[in-house]
Amino acid sequence: MPHAFPSAPLSYEQAGVQYELIDPLKVAAQRAAAATARQLAGHGLAEVSASRGESAYVVDAGPFYLASIVECLGSKALVADEMKRLTGRCHYAAIAQDTIAMAVNDLITVGATPLVVQAYWAAGGSEWFADAQRAQALVAGWQAACERCGVAWGGGETPALAGIVEPGRIDLAAACTGIVRPRSRLSLGEALGPGDAIVLLASSGIHANGLSLARKLAERLPQGYLTAIAPGVSYGEALLAPTLLYPPVTEALAAAGVPVHYAANITGHGWRKLLRHPKPLGYRVHSVPPVPPVLEFIAREAGHDAAEAYGTFNMGAGFALFVPGDEAERCAAVARTAGVAAWVAGCVETGPKRLVIEPLGVVYESDALVLR
Amino acid sequence: MPHAFPSAPLSYEQAGVQYELIDPLKVAAQRAAAATARQLAGHGLAEVSASRGESAYVVDAGPFYLASIVECLGSKALVADEMKRLTGRCHYAAIAQDTIAMAVNDLITVGATPLVVQAYWAAGGSEWFADAQRAQALVAGWQAACERCGVAWGGGETPALAGIVEPGRIDLAAACTGIVRPRSRLSLGEALGPGDAIVLLASSGIHANGLSLARKLAERLPQGYLTAIAPGVSYGEALLAPTLLYPPVTEALAAAGVPVHYAANITGHGWRKLLRHPKPLGYRVHSVPPVPPVLEFIAREAGHDAAEAYGTFNMGAGFALFVPGDEAERCAAVARTAGVAAWVAGCVETGPKRLVIEPLGVVYESDALVLR
Repeated sequence: MPHAFPSAPLSYEQAGVQYELIDPLKVAAQRAAAATARQLAGHGLAEVSASRGESAYVVDAGPFYLASIVECLGSKALVADEMKRLTGRCHYAAIAQDTIAMAVNDLITVGATPLVVQAYWAAGGSEWFADAQRAQALVAGWQAACERCGVAWGGGETPALAGIVEPGRIDLAAACTGIVRPRSRLSLGEALGPGDAIVLLASSGIHANGLSLARKLAERLPQGYLTAIAPGVSYGEALLAPTLLYPPVTEALAAAGVPVHYAANITGHGWRKLLRHPKPLGYRVHSVPPVPPVLEFIAREAGHDAAEAYGTFNMGAGFALFVPGDEAERCAAVARTAGVAAWVAGCVETGPKRLVIEPLGVVYESDALVLR
Repeated sequence: MPHAFPSAPLSYEQAGVQYELIDPLKVAAQRAAAATARQLAGHGLAEVSASRGESAYVVDAGPFYLASIVECLGSKALVADEMKRLTGRCHYAAIAQDTIAMAVNDLITVGATPLVVQAYWAAGGSEWFADAQRAQALVAGWQAACERCGVAWGGGETPALAGIVEPGRIDLAAACTGIVRPRSRLSLGEALGPGDAIVLLASSGIHANGLSLARKLAERLPQGYLTAIAPGVSYGEALLAPTLLYPPVTEALAAAGVPVHYAANITGHGWRKLLRHPKPLGYRVHSVPPVPPVLEFIAREAGHDAAEAYGTFNMGAGFALFVPGDEAERCAAVARTAGVAAWVAGCVETGPKRLVIEPLGVVYESDALVLR
């Protein structure tokens, strides 16, 4: 059972990620990137400008839209490496799924069908690839995740980057290209409005966001990653549950004719991502899904109250769909048939922009999430 | 002037890249990736299987083909970091161009027009982004390269990956998506055959391949990167000449109606990349372009003969176009008008598969390049 451990609360900034140093670059990059949009006119094409600031970039290619993205796994592989040292078990098949999930779960928010994934596996040296069991697990997990998502694995890069990537480590990322077809599937929020329902899709645990904090927490636990968080389940094993893949849900919704007005992948910033769309709308959640034990454990051990926990982690909801109110139950049913637990959890209201999680008494105002 | 330095020859394997450790993984990954192609049938689409093993992956999307890729810069940023320490000059605008070039120059080999670039900038920690001059140079160089190539910068990732990427370093990559339109621009080599001409496009220097060897060589030079390779030009500065961007050439060729049968980006393995296509064809080069001083210097100092130098570095030819013989002069002229020096350098013959560089007396047999 969880080890009660008296200590000071642990925030994301204490875990070593200093957003204030990254943000000026991000702003400069966003501005420079936006200025390049006019290049598409030279090819008789145009960007869908509403996709700037969304989770994937969309170009109007005529008969359909093109969507593309590159996403990084983050630091979750460090947990896999440590658990391998502690238990001998290799988790790189799960890590492969996490990496692909980071890309495809973002890509589908705009209504795209993911078609091609490219692998980016940058190792600290050639010797990373000499561990055949680990390398084969990465390959097998990558293939299986592609097949689960209906995407073709196009190829990729496997550089050995001694001097840039740490010895014995690997920097994993995935690029994904897809199409929005028919064009009516575009879900950038144009139709998002009061009366829409919020349908939440289950997460499997921490997914691949918040790992810096989770790793920092492990350092404070006397038994570290081997701390039992439930009978027979260690903290490290629980952290390594692979991120759920949501493309089967969005493809099933399209096949069933359930319209999606908007979608948000709940990653960094946790439930504050429900505030992602720029419209001045209110979001009211009337029921929250069950919290995965590993997230309950982290919140307790890190001393987070509900506002900090739900504003940092997915807390059991890995993806949000915003659909017409009268489609909400059908949306959840289709998701369940596609293999993912789902709940009609709330509704969209007139503004001001804010998120109210009624069962928890938590309110995030519009300034709780600044992405653009 | 170049420093004459007696020492043992330096091969690529001595420079720390052990291909025999990477290759089993690459083979396994290629097989697993190929098996995922059938996933596209679920969306009513299909891959262009001839693109497997080529520089970009191609999907038949109906009205046009979709092409996508992810490419890594490699270790060139380490040279920029060292030159910053030695001279105070920031080279990250050039490094940005190199990174984009790695992606777009590969993407265009299949006949695609690059449309969207995604940035992958994974730093060793948040503090990398605190150097405002360097961060702004990276942004400005990235934007300028996108504009030169007519692509939109869609967005990207700027993770801080302490524990995975080395402190103070950055792992740079670019993903690119494009379309082949009209479909007749597809240049996977179906029409490649005897009588075609080989048109070579100039390089600016080492580009972004062979840097591991070039860095190793710097360690053997008494003045290292500050060694003068020509009056007023240091070895380090010369290495950092940015990779040329070839999309303006391929777009100009399309606009001029010059058909391209096949194209090869001359990167790792140097001129052996001319053997890239699987057809059993011969390639005869009758004239070689001028060798950039930095590559001449490396070949001499590393003790390479012509076969090793041309089999490792681009030696002045960054890109090869295979066009109908009677279009060769026009192809070169269009390239020059687009701003890149070009030469009609040779021709394609009946097999056996081999590359003959007549002026150098160098022959590479078909087993000199094994990519699939």
